[in-house]
Amino acid sequence: MFVPHTSCSLVIMENADPTARKDLEMFFERLVPEDTAYLIHTAEGSDDSTSHIRTVLTRSSEVLPIANGEMQLGTWQGVFLFEHRRKPHQRKIAVTIIGE
Amino acid sequence: MFVPHTSCSLVIMENADPTARKDLEMFFERLVPEDTAYLIHTAEGSDDSTSHIRTVLTRSSEVLPIANGEMQLGTWQGVFLFEHRRKPHQRKIAVTIIGE
Amino acid sequence: MFVPHTSCSLVIMENADPTARKDLEMFFERLVPEDTAYLIHTAEGSDDSTSHIRTVLTRSSEVLPIANGEMQLGTWQGVFLFEHRRKPHQRKIAVTIIGE
Repeated sequence: MFVPHTSCSLVIMENADPTARKDLEMFFERLVPEDTAYLIHTAEGSDDSTSHIRTVLTRSSEVLPIANGEMQLGTWQGVFLFEHRRKPHQRKIAVTIIGE
Repeated sequence: MFVPHTSCSLVIMENADPTARKDLEMFFERLVPEDTAYLIHTAEGSDDSTSHIRTVLTRSSEVLPIANGEMQLGTWQGVFLFEHRRKPHQRKIAVTIIGE
Repeated sequence: MFVPHTSCSLVIMENADPTARKDLEMFFERLVPEDTAYLIHTAEGSDDSTSHIRTVLTRSSEVLPIANGEMQLGTWQGVFLFEHRRKPHQRKIAVTIIGE
Protein backbone atom coordinates (compact mmCIF):
# COMPACT_ATOMS: atom_id res chain seq x y z
CA MET A 1 0.00 0.00 0.00
CA PHE A 2 1.31 3.38 -0.97
CA VAL A 3 0.08 6.93 -0.55
CA PRO A 4 1.24 9.33 -3.29
CA HIS A 5 1.01 12.34 -0.97
CA THR A 6 3.52 14.26 1.15
CA SER A 7 1.28 15.37 3.98
CA CYS A 8 -0.44 12.18 5.07
CA SER A 9 0.91 8.75 5.82
CA LEU A 10 0.08 5.12 6.46
CA VAL A 11 0.41 3.64 9.93
CA ILE A 12 -0.29 0.24 11.41
CA MET A 13 -1.90 0.91 14.74
CA GLU A 14 -4.06 -0.51 17.50
CA ASN A 15 -7.51 -0.83 15.91
CA ALA A 16 -9.84 -1.58 18.82
CA ASP A 17 -9.85 1.44 21.11
CA PRO A 18 -10.12 4.87 19.43
CA THR A 19 -8.32 6.47 22.39
CA ALA A 20 -5.08 4.88 21.13
CA ARG A 21 -5.40 6.91 17.91
CA LYS A 22 -6.32 10.00 19.89
CA ASP A 23 -3.12 9.58 21.92
CA LEU A 24 -1.09 9.19 18.75
CA GLU A 25 -2.50 12.47 17.43
CA MET A 26 -1.82 14.26 20.71
CA PHE A 27 1.73 12.91 20.76
CA PHE A 28 2.43 14.12 17.21
CA GLU A 29 0.91 17.51 17.96
CA ARG A 30 3.47 17.83 20.77
CA LEU A 31 6.42 16.29 18.88
CA VAL A 32 5.89 18.41 15.75
CA PRO A 33 3.71 21.33 16.89
CA GLU A 34 2.03 23.26 14.10
CA ASP A 35 3.25 26.56 15.53
CA THR A 36 6.94 25.56 15.40
CA ALA A 37 8.57 28.96 14.97
CA TYR A 38 11.86 27.97 13.30
CA LEU A 39 10.27 26.21 10.30
CA ILE A 40 10.48 28.18 7.06
CA HIS A 41 8.54 26.02 4.54
CA THR A 42 5.16 27.46 5.50
CA ALA A 43 3.83 28.83 2.20
CA GLU A 44 0.66 26.75 2.63
CA GLY A 45 0.27 27.57 6.31
CA SER A 46 1.76 26.56 9.64
CA ASP A 47 0.76 22.93 9.01
CA ASP A 48 2.76 22.75 5.75
CA SER A 49 6.26 21.76 6.85
CA THR A 50 4.96 19.95 9.92
CA SER A 51 2.85 17.71 7.65
CA HIS A 52 5.94 16.68 5.66
CA ILE A 53 7.94 16.05 8.84
CA ARG A 54 5.15 13.93 10.34
CA THR A 55 5.01 11.96 7.09
CA VAL A 56 8.74 11.25 7.26
CA LEU A 57 8.46 10.18 10.92
CA THR A 58 5.80 7.67 9.90
CA ARG A 59 5.76 6.35 6.31
CA SER A 60 4.25 6.46 2.83
CA SER A 61 4.07 2.71 2.32
CA GLU A 62 3.10 -0.35 4.29
CA VAL A 63 3.95 -3.90 3.28
CA LEU A 64 1.74 -6.70 4.56
CA PRO A 65 1.80 -10.46 4.11
CA ILE A 66 -1.20 -12.09 2.43
CA ALA A 67 -2.25 -15.72 2.85
CA ASN A 68 -5.40 -17.46 1.63
CA GLY A 69 -6.50 -14.22 0.06
CA GLU A 70 -6.42 -12.27 3.32
CA MET A 71 -4.10 -9.71 4.84
CA GLN A 72 -2.32 -11.33 7.75
CA LEU A 73 -2.77 -8.50 10.19
CA GLY A 74 -2.49 -9.23 13.89
CA THR A 75 -5.65 -9.24 16.00
CA TRP A 76 -5.13 -5.67 17.21
CA GLN A 77 -3.63 -4.22 14.05
CA GLY A 78 -5.37 -1.91 11.62
CA VAL A 79 -3.98 0.08 8.71
CA PHE A 80 -4.86 3.74 9.00
CA LEU A 81 -4.38 6.79 6.84
CA PHE A 82 -2.88 9.45 9.09
CA GLU A 83 -3.93 12.90 7.82
CA HIS A 84 -1.45 15.62 8.78
CA ARG A 85 -3.22 18.67 7.34
CA ARG A 86 -5.87 20.56 9.23
CA LYS A 87 -8.24 20.97 6.30
CA PRO A 88 -9.91 17.85 4.89
CA HIS A 89 -8.21 16.44 1.80
CA GLN A 90 -9.16 13.77 -0.68
CA ARG A 91 -6.49 11.05 -0.60
CA LYS A 92 -5.62 8.10 -2.82
CA ILE A 93 -4.05 4.83 -1.78
CA ALA A 94 -2.33 2.58 -4.32
CA VAL A 95 -2.55 -1.11 -3.49
CA THR A 96 -0.21 -3.56 -5.22
CA ILE A 97 -0.59 -7.31 -4.71
CA ILE A 98 2.29 -9.63 -5.51
CA GLY A 99 2.08 -13.42 -5.85
CA GLU A 100 0.09 -16.14 -7.53
CA MET B 1 9.37 -9.47 7.64
CA PHE B 2 6.30 -8.50 9.52
CA VAL B 3 5.34 -8.42 13.20
CA PRO B 4 1.61 -8.88 13.83
CA HIS B 5 1.77 -6.94 17.10
CA THR B 6 1.02 -3.33 18.08
CA SER B 7 3.52 -2.90 20.90
CA CYS B 8 6.79 -4.08 19.41
CA SER B 9 8.45 -3.28 16.11
CA LEU B 10 11.20 -4.20 13.70
CA VAL B 11 14.25 -1.99 13.29
CA ILE B 12 17.39 -2.20 11.23
CA MET B 13 20.16 -1.09 13.51
CA GLU B 14 23.89 -1.14 14.17
CA ASN B 15 24.62 -4.75 15.10
CA ALA B 16 28.16 -4.71 16.44
CA ASP B 17 28.20 -2.63 19.60
CA PRO B 18 25.35 -3.24 22.10
CA THR B 19 25.74 0.33 23.39
CA ALA B 20 24.12 1.56 20.16
CA ARG B 21 20.94 -0.37 21.06
CA LYS B 22 21.16 0.86 24.65
CA ASP B 23 21.27 4.45 23.34
CA LEU B 24 18.25 3.77 21.14
CA GLU B 25 16.30 2.53 24.16
CA MET B 26 17.33 5.53 26.24
CA PHE B 27 16.35 7.88 23.45
CA PHE B 28 12.88 6.32 23.09
CA GLU B 29 12.37 6.37 26.86
CA ARG B 30 12.95 10.15 26.70
CA LEU B 31 11.00 10.75 23.45
CA VAL B 32 7.95 8.75 24.57
CA PRO B 33 8.27 8.48 28.37
CA GLU B 34 6.13 5.82 29.98
CA ASP B 35 4.80 8.28 32.54
CA THR B 36 3.45 10.70 29.89
CA ALA B 37 0.59 12.29 31.81
CA TYR B 38 -1.68 13.41 28.95
CA LEU B 39 -2.08 9.94 27.38
CA ILE B 40 -5.48 8.37 27.98
CA HIS B 41 -5.19 4.89 26.40
CA THR B 42 -3.62 3.32 29.50
CA ALA B 43 -6.01 0.46 30.31
CA GLU B 44 -3.09 -1.99 30.23
CA GLY B 45 -0.75 0.30 32.17
CA SER B 46 1.40 3.36 31.57
CA ASP B 47 3.34 1.50 28.85
CA ASP B 48 0.18 0.79 26.82
CA SER B 49 -0.23 3.88 24.63
CA THR B 50 3.50 4.57 24.64
CA SER B 51 4.10 1.12 23.13
CA HIS B 52 1.77 1.86 20.23
CA ILE B 53 3.35 5.28 19.65
CA ARG B 54 6.86 3.80 19.67
CA THR B 55 5.67 1.18 17.17
CA VAL B 56 4.35 3.87 14.84
CA LEU B 57 7.62 5.85 15.13
CA THR B 58 9.50 2.75 14.03
CA ARG B 59 7.68 0.11 11.92
CA SER B 60 5.93 -3.24 11.77
CA SER B 61 7.61 -4.46 8.60
CA GLU B 62 11.06 -4.49 7.08
CA VAL B 63 11.80 -5.22 3.44
CA LEU B 64 15.23 -6.57 2.56
CA PRO B 65 16.84 -7.57 -0.72
CA ILE B 66 17.98 -11.19 -1.12
CA ALA B 67 20.66 -12.40 -3.50
CA ASN B 68 22.24 -15.85 -3.79
CA GLY B 69 19.97 -17.04 -1.01
CA GLU B 70 21.23 -14.49 1.49
CA MET B 71 19.82 -11.27 2.94
CA GLN B 72 21.85 -8.38 1.56
CA LEU B 73 22.30 -6.56 4.83
CA GLY B 74 25.15 -4.08 5.14
CA THR B 75 28.16 -5.01 7.26
CA TRP B 76 26.90 -3.15 10.32
CA GLN B 77 23.19 -3.81 9.89
CA GLY B 78 21.13 -6.21 11.95
CA VAL B 79 17.36 -6.70 12.10
CA PHE B 80 16.08 -6.43 15.65
CA LEU B 81 12.75 -6.87 17.33
CA PHE B 82 12.22 -3.78 19.46
CA GLU B 83 10.03 -4.69 22.47
CA HIS B 84 8.08 -1.71 23.79
CA ARG B 85 6.32 -3.35 26.75
CA ARG B 86 7.93 -3.67 30.17
CA LYS B 87 6.82 -7.24 30.80
CA PRO B 88 8.27 -10.00 28.60
CA HIS B 89 6.01 -11.04 25.72
CA GLN B 90 6.12 -13.89 23.27
CA ARG B 91 6.33 -12.42 19.76
CA LYS B 92 5.88 -13.84 16.27
CA ILE B 93 7.57 -12.65 13.09
CA ALA B 94 6.12 -13.51 9.68
CA VAL B 95 8.75 -13.86 6.96
CA THR B 96 7.67 -13.76 3.32
CA ILE B 97 10.16 -14.44 0.53
CA ILE B 98 9.42 -13.32 -3.01
CA GLY B 99 11.26 -14.48 -6.13
CA GLU B 100 12.46 -17.59 -7.89
CA MET C 1 15.14 0.47 -2.53
CA PHE C 2 17.44 -0.37 0.29
CA VAL C 3 20.45 1.35 1.86
CA PRO C 4 22.92 -1.07 3.45
CA HIS C 5 24.14 1.58 5.93
CA THR C 6 23.30 2.39 9.55
CA SER C 7 23.85 6.15 9.51
CA CYS C 8 21.83 7.32 6.53
CA SER C 9 18.31 6.55 5.45
CA LEU C 10 15.74 6.80 2.68
CA VAL C 11 12.84 9.19 2.93
CA ILE C 12 9.98 10.11 0.65
CA MET C 13 9.66 13.86 0.91
CA GLU C 14 8.32 16.99 -0.73
CA ASN C 15 10.52 17.41 -3.83
CA ALA C 16 9.71 20.89 -5.12
CA ASP C 17 10.83 23.39 -2.50
CA PRO C 18 14.28 22.82 -0.93
CA THR C 19 13.15 24.65 2.22
CA ALA C 20 11.01 21.60 3.09
CA ARG C 21 14.20 19.49 3.27
CA LYS C 22 15.96 22.23 5.22
CA ASP C 23 13.12 22.17 7.76
CA LEU C 24 13.38 18.40 8.03
CA GLU C 25 17.10 18.69 8.80
CA MET C 26 16.51 21.40 11.40
CA PHE C 27 13.79 19.32 13.01
CA PHE C 28 16.03 16.25 13.28
CA GLU C 29 18.89 18.36 14.64
CA ARG C 30 16.52 19.39 17.45
CA LEU C 31 14.88 16.00 17.95
CA VAL C 32 18.17 14.09 18.09
CA PRO C 33 20.83 16.76 18.79
CA GLU C 34 24.38 15.71 18.06
CA ASP C 35 25.54 16.90 21.48
CA THR C 36 23.07 14.67 23.37
CA ALA C 37 24.99 14.15 26.62
CA TYR C 38 23.48 10.85 27.80
CA LEU C 39 24.39 8.83 24.70
CA ILE C 40 27.28 6.43 25.19
CA HIS C 41 27.85 4.93 21.72
CA THR C 42 30.09 7.78 20.55
CA ALA C 43 33.32 5.99 19.57
CA GLU C 44 33.12 7.60 16.11
CA GLY C 45 32.13 11.02 17.43
CA SER C 46 29.08 12.80 18.77
CA ASP C 47 27.21 12.08 15.52
CA ASP C 48 27.68 8.30 15.87
CA SER C 49 24.73 7.18 18.00
CA THR C 50 22.57 10.05 16.78
CA SER C 51 23.03 8.82 13.20
CA HIS C 52 21.74 5.37 14.13
CA ILE C 53 18.79 6.82 16.02
CA ARG C 54 17.88 9.11 13.11
CA THR C 55 18.06 6.09 10.79
CA VAL C 56 15.65 4.13 13.00
CA LEU C 57 13.25 7.10 13.15
CA THR C 58 13.18 7.16 9.36
CA ARG C 59 13.96 3.93 7.44
CA SER C 60 16.46 1.86 5.46
CA SER C 61 14.05 0.79 2.73
CA GLU C 62 11.32 2.31 0.62
CA VAL C 63 8.80 0.33 -1.39
CA LEU C 64 7.23 1.99 -4.40
CA PRO C 65 4.66 0.83 -6.94
CA ILE C 66 5.73 0.69 -10.60
CA ALA C 67 3.39 0.85 -13.58
CA ASN C 68 4.22 1.14 -17.29
CA GLY C 69 7.88 1.07 -16.37
CA GLU C 70 7.71 4.12 -14.14
CA MET C 71 7.73 4.69 -10.40
CA GLN C 72 4.27 5.84 -9.39
CA LEU C 73 5.39 8.67 -7.14
CA GLY C 74 2.94 11.44 -6.38
CA THR C 75 3.45 14.84 -7.99
CA TRP C 76 5.23 16.27 -4.96
CA GLN C 77 7.07 13.16 -3.85
CA GLY C 78 10.76 12.53 -4.26
CA VAL C 79 12.95 9.78 -2.81
CA PHE C 80 15.92 11.21 -0.95
CA LEU C 81 18.95 9.78 0.77
CA PHE C 82 19.08 11.39 4.19
CA GLU C 83 22.72 11.58 5.34
CA HIS C 84 23.05 11.60 9.13
CA ARG C 85 26.82 11.93 9.46
CA ARG C 86 28.59 15.26 9.40
CA LYS C 87 31.44 14.15 7.16
CA PRO C 88 30.66 13.23 3.54
CA HIS C 89 30.27 9.48 2.95
CA GLN C 90 29.98 7.39 -0.17
CA ARG C 91 26.65 5.55 -0.07
CA LYS C 92 25.15 2.67 -2.02
CA ILE C 93 21.49 2.07 -2.76
CA ALA C 94 20.24 -1.38 -3.74
CA VAL C 95 17.25 -1.31 -6.08
CA THR C 96 15.18 -4.47 -6.52
CA ILE C 97 12.36 -4.59 -9.09
CA ILE C 98 9.66 -7.24 -8.81
CA GLY C 99 7.17 -8.15 -11.50
CA GLU C 100 6.94 -9.04 -15.16
